Amino acid sequence: MDTIILSDWLAARLDRAAAEPIYRQTLRLMQQAILAGQLAPGTKLPSSRMLAEDLGIARNTVLHVYDQLTAEGYVISTTGSGTYVADTQPDSAAVNARRKPAVVAVDAQGKPVAAPGKPAKRDLDDLSSRGRRLIGQAGVSAKQWGAFMPGVPDVSEFPARTWSRLQARLWKEANPDLLTYAPGGGYRPLRRALSDYLRVARSVNCTPDQIIITTGIHQSIDLAVRLLTDVGDRAWVEEPCYWGARSVLQSSGITLVPVPVDDEGLNPREQDLQQPPRLALVTPSHQYPLGMVMSLARRRTLLEYARLHNVWIIEDDYDSEFRYGSRPLASLQGLDDAGQVIYVGSLGKMLFPGLRMGYMIAPEHLVDTFRTGVAELYREGQLMQQAVMTDFIMDGHLTSHVRRMRALYGERRQILIDAITARFGNELPVMGDEAGLHLVLGLPDHADDRAVTAAAFAAGVIVRPLATYYNSDPPARRGLLLGYACVPNEKIRPAFDTLARVIEQTALKKPTRAA
Amino acid sequence: MDTIILSDWLAARLDRAAAEPIYRQTLRLMQQAILAGQLAPGTKLPSSRMLAEDLGIARNTVLHVYDQLTAEGYVISTTGSGTYVADTQPDSAAVNARRKPAVVAVDAQGKPVAAPGKPAKRDLDDLSSRGRRLIGQAGVSAKQWGAFMPGVPDVSEFPARTWSRLQARLWKEANPDLLTYAPGGGYRPLRRALSDYLRVARSVNCTPDQIIITTGIHQSIDLAVRLLTDVGDRAWVEEPCYWGARSVLQSSGITLVPVPVDDEGLNPREQDLQQPPRLALVTPSHQYPLGMVMSLARRRTLLEYARLHNVWIIEDDYDSEFRYGSRPLASLQGLDDAGQVIYVGSLGKMLFPGLRMGYMIAPEHLVDTFRTGVAELYREGQLMQQAVMTDFIMDGHLTSHVRRMRALYGERRQILIDAITARFGNELPVMGDEAGLHLVLGLPDHADDRAVTAAAFAAGVIVRPLATYYNSDPPARRGLLLGYACVPNEKIRPAFDTLARVIEQTALKKPTRAA
Repeated sequence: MDTIILSDWLAARLDRAAAEPIYRQTLRLMQQAILAGQLAPGTKLPSSRMLAEDLGIARNTVLHVYDQLTAEGYVISTTGSGTYVADTQPDSAAVNARRKPAVVAVDAQGKPVAAPGKPAKRDLDDLSSRGRRLIGQAGVSAKQWGAFMPGVPDVSEFPARTWSRLQARLWKEANPDLLTYAPGGGYRPLRRALSDYLRVARSVNCTPDQIIITTGIHQSIDLAVRLLTDVGDRAWVEEPCYWGARSVLQSSGITLVPVPVDDEGLNPREQDLQQPPRLALVTPSHQYPLGMVMSLARRRTLLEYARLHNVWIIEDDYDSEFRYGSRPLASLQGLDDAGQVIYVGSLGKMLFPGLRMGYMIAPEHLVDTFRTGVAELYREGQLMQQAVMTDFIMDGHLTSHVRRMRALYGERRQILIDAITARFGNELPVMGDEAGLHLVLGLPDHADDRAVTAAAFAAGVIVRPLATYYNSDPPARRGLLLGYACVPNEKIRPAFDTLARVIEQTALKKPTRAA
Repeated sequence: MDTIILSDWLAARLDRAAAEPIYRQTLRLMQQAILAGQLAPGTKLPSSRMLAEDLGIARNTVLHVYDQLTAEGYVISTTGSGTYVADTQPDSAAVNARRKPAVVAVDAQGKPVAAPGKPAKRDLDDLSSRGRRLIGQAGVSAKQWGAFMPGVPDVSEFPARTWSRLQARLWKEANPDLLTYAPGGGYRPLRRALSDYLRVARSVNCTPDQIIITTGIHQSIDLAVRLLTDVGDRAWVEEPCYWGARSVLQSSGITLVPVPVDDEGLNPREQDLQQPPRLALVTPSHQYPLGMVMSLARRRTLLEYARLHNVWIIEDDYDSEFRYGSRPLASLQGLDDAGQVIYVGSLGKMLFPGLRMGYMIAPEHLVDTFRTGVAELYREGQLMQQAVMTDFIMDGHLTSHVRRMRALYGERRQILIDAITARFGNELPVMGDEAGLHLVLGLPDHADDRAVTAAAFAAGVIVRPLATYYNSDPPARRGLLLGYACVPNEKIRPAFDTLARVIEQTALKKPTRAA
């Protein structure tokens, strides 16, 4: 390219009326000219005084531009001798160093087609295999609030004023220890408070030191997977199971073995028992999403089997606080005396999901390992928030909030069940309603629950299709998850009526009713 | 076991003086008896009235115990016919289903030795291969504060009162949308504010929609790896590099290719260029840990090479705000017009590490994919905190805080450099001091920087050994990272004097000075 007369070239391109400052425009234009080769390496730049005069701008501005170009390596300033364009051309020898020619496949007309791994254009093909699988099987819902989004507590009921007061008190002290990194599994007073709470509420068996604070169940499962499994290991998951667990496991190279469940929970078949997995991920208190409780006999069988065959058990106890009509059940972890069970739970579901705080109880001999793992992989933090959580628990607010929510969710659950029964009688089974933040409304075997979900969404009602939670195709059951926790009492019936119409039209193949 | 006379057995074990309520003691004892088989399946329990009388406790207590045992499946209550111990024995057929006998290796005396994969006792052998490697190569320091911990900002200078005020204001409104899940890459006003800030401060080229809020650099790198690479893929890392990046990459099955650096930054050898990696992780603004800046020529070469061979570049711009004596440099991302560069940064290092907030700039065509990935793998959250961050930026506090810290860290850097020069003259080279929160003090080739680190720790001074950051053994350089940002001005000299003594005694092999 011809060497340009810099001041003319710049003058033609500077826009003094633009919002962008002259300094930035000048800098940008000169960078472009150098990168494009219009200002060739070795070209001497005009003195700042002359360029400023020619352009009618402040000399100071030009000096700053030259400074920045020097700092970034575009030009070299020599004392007394002027400023020169540096040689910043890419090293084409390095760029083209790869001698082996790319394998170029050609089609029938002899035109090159994109070689595998070298996409012709940039799009979803850019993703790796595991990336494509993650996105393809994504289970997360685009909308996260409103009738009948499952798994979401009613955050409008969260005692924000209390939380804010406790928070402000701690920030007033602004203890630096709470603002920095602190390896150690989390704020110790919180671990102590949680240990006491869980011992009573969930019959877990642990000391404060066994507790590791995480950002929630996803991170807890991820940590266990990274420390205890290798790529290609197999994990039992309940069929159906939580999509988030599936994503985390598969993304780390674990092969899922979906194991059927029945009224008593996980029910491994002969073929499953023949090949002990590395890991088994279970929700014994309240199967997610179908809701059954793992019987005591099955719990003992699983523990024995795991002990004999060295299987790690992850107990995901995600919403056991919300049991209607009877006390929460003792955990599987409390029955384990061989250190096989890793218990994980979430504070977010009890309080507000944006909290991103959960915990895991590590077997005693693995505590140091798990703590190191958290620090290495994620860098712990949020100690200030953990301190607020501690005060919240110690002042009794967690217990009273959970109690209040249990009563409120119980009301909402009843309103929804009544609405279902009034509309459908016994025609559509209801599952998993004894606990949690959702129930499952069964659909006939011929129904397409994904299609019902889409139709409901179009009508303004969110549900989740049971198919999302199954790993095998076709899924063993059809149905919809209906979350009632986040729906105000008076909105449940009208939202359900809308949903019922959609179900009748899309899944029950009844003659069209007058709308 | 013989059937016990329940009331006698319980009476002998209940401790009425204990802190544990009688209800819990009775429940626990009965559970134990049933699990141990002392109360055999089918045994009829005494009526609640009789047991209460025999034990001298309230009938209500016994009723509650029986209720809970029923709920948990230990006993079965039949109407009018009494309460019976349920059959909860483990299903031994299932437990022992695996017919293939375990491969039992024996030693020379014919005694069984633990088969591979079946450790005889539970300890670190429990970990998987990748777990063992993660823990074995852990780079995180046990202590995270004080002279001369690198990478830690001075959190005591953080404007806590301002943050708290902004936070309280938001919590007063307690907008439920900020308390729940919200897929979408993060709070949009924050993404807008960051986009504006980064465009000016770092010359990045992006719209607010390209920004994904994460919990920091670890999560950002992890997300890119899970979406864009498969197990076994290769990644260029600078040699030396940040231990956290190594942990995240290896833990996801990536093979690291350590590539040498020189004064101009990453300097791939012929053998590296022959085999394009899937990914290249670079710190062009301020090589971590050695501190050099990637020259413009090398940047252009890397971008060209990456474009030609479809290599993803992750630009880790971890502390570019703190450049002393010249403006921060333009990012590599700003030079990229092929959508190859994924830019990641951290707000924690600017403000306080406990914040756990960072961001990544995704190439435009990958934005939806990255957002879905965050939601699937980690579940986003902390929207309230992101809203506080937004106000903090919009009210100008980020800029003023960074400016103030830059000046303060500049002072501390100078005090440390003066101390080094006064003690060692030119004997020990200082590297990377133009920017960041640390510098590197070079040691002679024969020095063992890990040993010096241990000795310094014993003397009460924290440093990090350069060896930790190298992937090859032996490391190409010896030295210590000294962080000065978190050390009050008046403590730098005394801490350095202590360190200097340790260095002289352990690394310089000089005759022992009078202590």
